[in-house]
Amino acid sequence: MTVLRLGYIHIGVPDLAAGRRHYGDVLGLLETHADGDSSCYKAWDEWDHHSLVIESGEPGLTKMGWKVSDTASLEALESATVVFGLSVERMAKGDNPGVGDGFRAVLPSGHAAEFYVEADLVGSSVGLRNPDPWPRSGVGGVAAPFFSHIAVTADDVGTTERYFSDVLAFHVSERLVANPDDEEPIVTFLSCGEQVHDIAIQKGPDGKLHHLAYEMESWNDILRGGDVLAMADVPIDVGPTRHGITRGQTLYFFDPAGNRNEIFAGGYRTYADRPTVTWTLDEMARGIFYINRSVPERFTTIVT
Amino acid sequence: MTVLRLGYIHIGVPDLAAGRRHYGDVLGLLETHADGDSSCYKAWDEWDHHSLVIESGEPGLTKMGWKVSDTASLEALESATVVFGLSVERMAKGDNPGVGDGFRAVLPSGHAAEFYVEADLVGSSVGLRNPDPWPRSGVGGVAAPFFSHIAVTADDVGTTERYFSDVLAFHVSERLVANPDDEEPIVTFLSCGEQVHDIAIQKGPDGKLHHLAYEMESWNDILRGGDVLAMADVPIDVGPTRHGITRGQTLYFFDPAGNRNEIFAGGYRTYADRPTVTWTLDEMARGIFYINRSVPERFTTIVT
Amino acid sequence: MTVLRLGYIHIGVPDLAAGRRHYGDVLGLLETHADGDSSCYKAWDEWDHHSLVIESGEPGLTKMGWKVSDTASLEALESATVVFGLSVERMAKGDNPGVGDGFRAVLPSGHAAEFYVEADLVGSSVGLRNPDPWPRSGVGGVAAPFFSHIAVTADDVGTTERYFSDVLAFHVSERLVANPDDEEPIVTFLSCGEQVHDIAIQKGPDGKLHHLAYEMESWNDILRGGDVLAMADVPIDVGPTRHGITRGQTLYFFDPAGNRNEIFAGGYRTYADRPTVTWTLDEMARGIFYINRSVPERFTTIVT
Amino acid sequence: MTVLRLGYIHIGVPDLAAGRRHYGDVLGLLETHADGDSSCYKAWDEWDHHSLVIESGEPGLTKMGWKVSDTASLEALESATVVFGLSVERMAKGDNPGVGDGFRAVLPSGHAAEFYVEADLVGSSVGLRNPDPWPRSGVGGVAAPFFSHIAVTADDVGTTERYFSDVLAFHVSERLVANPDDEEPIVTFLSCGEQVHDIAIQKGPDGKLHHLAYEMESWNDILRGGDVLAMADVPIDVGPTRHGITRGQTLYFFDPAGNRNEIFAGGYRTYADRPTVTWTLDEMARGIFYINRSVPERFTTIVT
Repeated sequence: MTVLRLGYIHIGVPDLAAGRRHYGDVLGLLETHADGDSSCYKAWDEWDHHSLVIESGEPGLTKMGWKVSDTASLEALESATVVFGLSVERMAKGDNPGVGDGFRAVLPSGHAAEFYVEADLVGSSVGLRNPDPWPRSGVGGVAAPFFSHIAVTADDVGTTERYFSDVLAFHVSERLVANPDDEEPIVTFLSCGEQVHDIAIQKGPDGKLHHLAYEMESWNDILRGGDVLAMADVPIDVGPTRHGITRGQTLYFFDPAGNRNEIFAGGYRTYADRPTVTWTLDEMARGIFYINRSVPERFTTIVT
Repeated sequence: MTVLRLGYIHIGVPDLAAGRRHYGDVLGLLETHADGDSSCYKAWDEWDHHSLVIESGEPGLTKMGWKVSDTASLEALESATVVFGLSVERMAKGDNPGVGDGFRAVLPSGHAAEFYVEADLVGSSVGLRNPDPWPRSGVGGVAAPFFSHIAVTADDVGTTERYFSDVLAFHVSERLVANPDDEEPIVTFLSCGEQVHDIAIQKGPDGKLHHLAYEMESWNDILRGGDVLAMADVPIDVGPTRHGITRGQTLYFFDPAGNRNEIFAGGYRTYADRPTVTWTLDEMARGIFYINRSVPERFTTIVT
Repeated sequence: MTVLRLGYIHIGVPDLAAGRRHYGDVLGLLETHADGDSSCYKAWDEWDHHSLVIESGEPGLTKMGWKVSDTASLEALESATVVFGLSVERMAKGDNPGVGDGFRAVLPSGHAAEFYVEADLVGSSVGLRNPDPWPRSGVGGVAAPFFSHIAVTADDVGTTERYFSDVLAFHVSERLVANPDDEEPIVTFLSCGEQVHDIAIQKGPDGKLHHLAYEMESWNDILRGGDVLAMADVPIDVGPTRHGITRGQTLYFFDPAGNRNEIFAGGYRTYADRPTVTWTLDEMARGIFYINRSVPERFTTIVT
Repeated sequence: MTVLRLGYIHIGVPDLAAGRRHYGDVLGLLETHADGDSSCYKAWDEWDHHSLVIESGEPGLTKMGWKVSDTASLEALESATVVFGLSVERMAKGDNPGVGDGFRAVLPSGHAAEFYVEADLVGSSVGLRNPDPWPRSGVGGVAAPFFSHIAVTADDVGTTERYFSDVLAFHVSERLVANPDDEEPIVTFLSCGEQVHDIAIQKGPDGKLHHLAYEMESWNDILRGGDVLAMADVPIDVGPTRHGITRGQTLYFFDPAGNRNEIFAGGYRTYADRPTVTWTLDEMARGIFYINRSVPERFTTIVT
């Protein structure tokens, strides 16, 4: 039962043209499909059909799609999801452009999640035969190479964490708790592989998005990305700076709809047997922004 | 059936004191166990008892140890190894310091491999409660945080690759072949997770080691590591430079016994569904050292 | 008439022990002289006796010392200073530890300035014979290699700028003005060599210090410096981020007395013939903090 | 008597079209003037008319042009040059495109040198009003921002050094000598400002060019530059690596005519009073390539 990664997310943007300028021109994602109501994007180093869909609609996360290693695992996950107590429904090839069969569930956090095995292969921008390390013809804007993770809010963080850890076999990399011996996390950081986190779930209203993140190669690329965002007059939230939690380097900003974006670099490699790190509430500010040790109120209150 | 990572390797060094100076003082690894004939080392960000054992003896790779996720997987791997045609033997807790039960096999390449689930937990140098991003008390020498991978030689690369891919469920990230349509690789790069490679197997004499590699955080740390190696008069092989294969940044050097070491940074994140990259022999030099596009003869001929 | 650089500054700290911990242990400067009321410090790559003196006293800048290339230039500067209308007095060898003869003046901004040619040679930490690129025995804390610049406030920025440009032959690298055609700057950035600025003078109360800055080698060292400051619980002001003005990379923080410090990297090379860059008030926030385009109120109001 | 910098060099290339592809398309320099026999180039962050002229002709350095701060200095330099024993001739505005009056001399090393005060102002690619830190419309190829220095060969290094130090008031930053007490350098590194060197002069045939160098912002940009050179199939000489001498980070390669180019980053800030560093012949390899401590024979024998 292996979840490979967060294969795609769908987000809502009231002004689709503005969203396309942001994700296409400013972030430098490649549009792989478009119709009157939505656009699909992939980053230059991804090979599947898309990792992001922006749709006309209210800001926020419409749904997330987890790519599973194989059909047997998909079926096992579906059964285990039912056993956990969630209701599931089948999803058919073509329900999403370029995505195969699978199933859908509503998570304990109220977010819609899809699980699937097949996606149309588009290929990365450097190809598969004697490839260059990056596209010699250039990539526009921030030029993020790969989708990284999302952070969402949930009223019941503990139960949502248990779904990911017990059913989906995610590993809890780090946790923020009120007191060292607390069982229930305030925020949990979960990994389905070696990334330090594929999803973070934090205490807050059900069904909301805190941020979506693209992975950059280095701290230098965070700086250059920040320059590009400034040139495009994108509103910055926080950074560039260091996270204590994950050790990553980060810059937060907003898309035109108010959905928080992050570019993220670094962060250690995790494994299923890596002991979970615990952060306590008294050191939360250091955990979130290690250097400054302060968290702007909007960072914890604005979700979409 | 999940292999987590290359948990440890044992290498031979004729002069143990010189080996300890190299791996302990120059690389900055932490000695976790020592007796008259060997020393165990872990890197500062690792948590298991050791990832490297140096032993009095001839240069070369004595054995490698693959850490497996759980006992059921271990048993399944053992059965599948037998089915593949290799003979296996049981290994007992305590056969290696700090390592639990498991099994041993001789790979088609002639290398000894061990598979195990348990290792004593030592913990990383930053701890598990509100940790710093790196040890504030400092780490000596090159200060590599984590073991990365090994490269070995095999007379029959294809069969060895098939053992890793078909039995151990590794993913072939990249392959060097003589001609685009060749079935048999000259070099194969295999991953058991999201690292671009955990082991590389290249055409050559059975049972030999091409290099062992530690992972650095960035290209900047490759430079600083090179400075440290120069200050310690360590013989350099090649680099700093860029690999075409894996996109990684690299510096090769030799321990006092002549075992080739690498410090490695970057390299893309791979997945089980990432399409395999193919390099052809006419672009081999670019694949190995992307910038210079030339490979010193010793790089392909010196193995231990 | 050549001013080489800002050779030293004296600052006041009410708690000398706390100041010594900050500048010695946290910044990693080397103490070269100490008595009951003060300590002299140099950075590891500097060769003169000191570049910073901390003194028991009220926070703020006690005086600055400009090192001049030769005695003839010193005399010419003294005469030109008198012609400009400032009163000067002689300073004798030994008035400052390790510093030779010279003269003193009070600048139009109310700051005390000394000018001198000779300083005792201590030498850098890597020596002069076949040196390493950095001290192999290590440098503690932030490990800044070199003093960079100061920023001070003045009621009459224009007259102070004219003293530096017309008398001391500094070059105006950049200027912030209210409107494009304004003659009078709100902030002026002046260079006596190829650094983008050796001193910045901004509108504000006479005699005050906005910040003192050490130069780091790279954006990576700004991050590592920020980690060190966090480990030492040093209060951060702003950053890490990019300046628009100077293009430099920056992190601002406070010493225990409240004197603002900066670590600074990058910034272009300037020359006496490089055309002056003009920033207008409507783009001030972008000029100061390019990525975020916002300036916390304390950054403009806190001076010592 | 102040020399600001090496304002321009002229080099010969037998195949002008190939030279234009190299310096224009691959290095990303901007052509500011062209006729049938030559092209003028400036880097994106330079403001004068050009810093490089490539001319149809034999490989090598046709001449170098030193920009002087003012006319009085130019006249004083001319007189001092004559006193030193070199013959001079006047050069007229228009002898070089975009360059004003001045004088010419043949250096003791046999190289033609011009000295001038005026150059047509073209301006940098980011402009002078609220500029971006780099051109938002992009720069092609390696995108070096600024010319850095040249290295030439001379039969009599000592006399050439004395011309630069005694007549032009350059500072000797570093020197390679056979034995510590030798008066005569084998290589000398001279600075007219705060760059660690503006010219290096090494023992060899009179009138030859060892390399010309562009300055990059960081070690990361050396890597990216190396990638670009590899994509364009440019022959690499040595690097990326670290210099011991200057501490700089470097990559050497060849233009289509065989003229050696360098991209260079880092290197400390020097001053007229910084003590000269001495390297001895036994540590020459470490001085030239600090990490590898070996120098390919072609690096010392190929000059144009």
